[in-house]
Amino acid sequence: MKLATQGNGSRDGELLVVSRDLSQAQSVNHIAPTLQYALDHWQQCQPQLELVYQKLNLKKSGVTDTTLCFSQCPVLSPLPRAYQWLDGSAYVNHVELVRKARGAQMPDSFWHDPLMYQGGSDDFLAPTQDIPLKDPSWGLDFESEIAIITDDVPMGCPPGDAAKHIKLFMLVNDVSLRNLIPEELAKGFGFMQSKPSSSFSPVAITPDELGERWDSKKIHLPLVTHLNNQLFGAPDAGVDMTFDFPTLVAHAAKSRNLTAGTIIGSGTVSNYDRSKGSSCLSEKRMLEKIATDEITTPFLKVGDRVKIEMLDTKGTSLFGAIEQTVVTPK
Amino acid sequence: MKLATQGNGSRDGELLVVSRDLSQAQSVNHIAPTLQYALDHWQQCQPQLELVYQKLNLKKSGVTDTTLCFSQCPVLSPLPRAYQWLDGSAYVNHVELVRKARGAQMPDSFWHDPLMYQGGSDDFLAPTQDIPLKDPSWGLDFESEIAIITDDVPMGCPPGDAAKHIKLFMLVNDVSLRNLIPEELAKGFGFMQSKPSSSFSPVAITPDELGERWDSKKIHLPLVTHLNNQLFGAPDAGVDMTFDFPTLVAHAAKSRNLTAGTIIGSGTVSNYDRSKGSSCLSEKRMLEKIATDEITTPFLKVGDRVKIEMLDTKGTSLFGAIEQTVVTPK
Repeated sequence: MKLATQGNGSRDGELLVVSRDLSQAQSVNHIAPTLQYALDHWQQCQPQLELVYQKLNLKKSGVTDTTLCFSQCPVLSPLPRAYQWLDGSAYVNHVELVRKARGAQMPDSFWHDPLMYQGGSDDFLAPTQDIPLKDPSWGLDFESEIAIITDDVPMGCPPGDAAKHIKLFMLVNDVSLRNLIPEELAKGFGFMQSKPSSSFSPVAITPDELGERWDSKKIHLPLVTHLNNQLFGAPDAGVDMTFDFPTLVAHAAKSRNLTAGTIIGSGTVSNYDRSKGSSCLSEKRMLEKIATDEITTPFLKVGDRVKIEMLDTKGTSLFGAIEQTVVTPK
Repeated sequence: MKLATQGNGSRDGELLVVSRDLSQAQSVNHIAPTLQYALDHWQQCQPQLELVYQKLNLKKSGVTDTTLCFSQCPVLSPLPRAYQWLDGSAYVNHVELVRKARGAQMPDSFWHDPLMYQGGSDDFLAPTQDIPLKDPSWGLDFESEIAIITDDVPMGCPPGDAAKHIKLFMLVNDVSLRNLIPEELAKGFGFMQSKPSSSFSPVAITPDELGERWDSKKIHLPLVTHLNNQLFGAPDAGVDMTFDFPTLVAHAAKSRNLTAGTIIGSGTVSNYDRSKGSSCLSEKRMLEKIATDEITTPFLKVGDRVKIEMLDTKGTSLFGAIEQTVVTPK
């Protein structure tokens, strides 16, 4: 099943069921007004939404009076605001690389104990919304990631029980202000000013949509990033993922419950095979520094355009594309 | 105006207007079903809620058929879940003390640049709900704080414009797992497992309720904590607050918008005058260590009872009391 949220003037938008090929959509206000409502009442809503989805996929003709042309819908992030957004750093080789570039050792514990931060979730950008850059010296970067949405997860949930709590997948652009990070992390309280609003893919999809590409632990498909219409990277999300999604869920639930609608990100997708490219500017800059001691790739500037998507094995877009342009805020 | 949330089986509960003396309450479902709804539509809802409040305060007799006895209401935290919970460390002398006890220097920048972390906000405990302690070795502590709730704050809001965005005040018990903190902070990504669910005072109050005790920057009243029915501390929240509330709001909004219902905490209230006592066990333990090199105060154990409240100059409880017992989770 594929779900999206259409802007309707309210803060949480209106839930849509979207056809598998992303051509048509249908408002499902009679089942669940918003995605958060559907997640709050998943057991009741999921079968009803699934029925709408199956019927929508059977429609051969164009848009009818009960359906919408999805590409015309003013789409928001599936959860325009959420009660929780946690972001892991599951591709540890990326962390190792960043450390190496600045000559710092990475503690061995990073291979066993996931890094995860609590992110701001009150005001997500829409998938095609401009990214405001208030101060170019802040060092704006994108980070292409995969995220899951959970139902209610009880405190102490072991990794072995965690996969069943994963209800939806999305893609994320975890927007970062790189030059604010060192000072902020030095204070020891984690990211805040250095992590402004993230954006998510146009649709959120249920695990069954991934078929055998989801093995209940990882997604085995490349995550494709374009910068200014040029391929920037396409590392495989199933390769070099040190901590799989159930492990990230269990880590998050160690000392507290997670409530329905909790979003957990994978962190920047990264492969040891550097020919696959990168999922953020910072990684590319670090590779340049290691190779030549000279960084040539700049951070994002006004007018730059980032596109993030994931294609299935037939080349069809699974989630629709995050496609954002950097602008000076009004 | 005083507002509370009553449990009704839903995740967000039901909004109540509560009389100034906390004796009576009235459901205001016809104005706003939940506190988040009221904050989302504050300009429309606030005058209507205020009218109910004024009428409720005029009632001289006991509970009528349109009102409820507030002490009998199954009260949740005013926002049982929120889209954002940011916690500052505005009483820098507390931070300095904790550092001193472990022989670490505090950077001078801590006096100019607020410490603030992004906290988990999906699952707050109710004001009198038991605190589950899954593992006593985690070092459970309370932290008595004041918090504000904002309306929509635009990115880059200067401190001079921030006070008007403060719509409500609450008290907080920012529950902490002290022994999980060092390892988590060493990873550099901030608190997560070491900060389980917080709880908030039974009522949230508008700034006018504080009269001249709120000078648009700080609240000038003691924050009173009892541990197992013994006074633990009553430091004045208006004394030694290095960063006032408008400064904390501006800090939070530096690189992003804050949406309505954002909660920002003051951090543990602490005075240089140690005769005022402390607002967390950790501070008391540090003072013991500095004085005698021996820590005698243990962290919280099952059965311990914490009470946090603030009294006005006449001795009347402004927010009702947070009153929680530590238990072994079922």
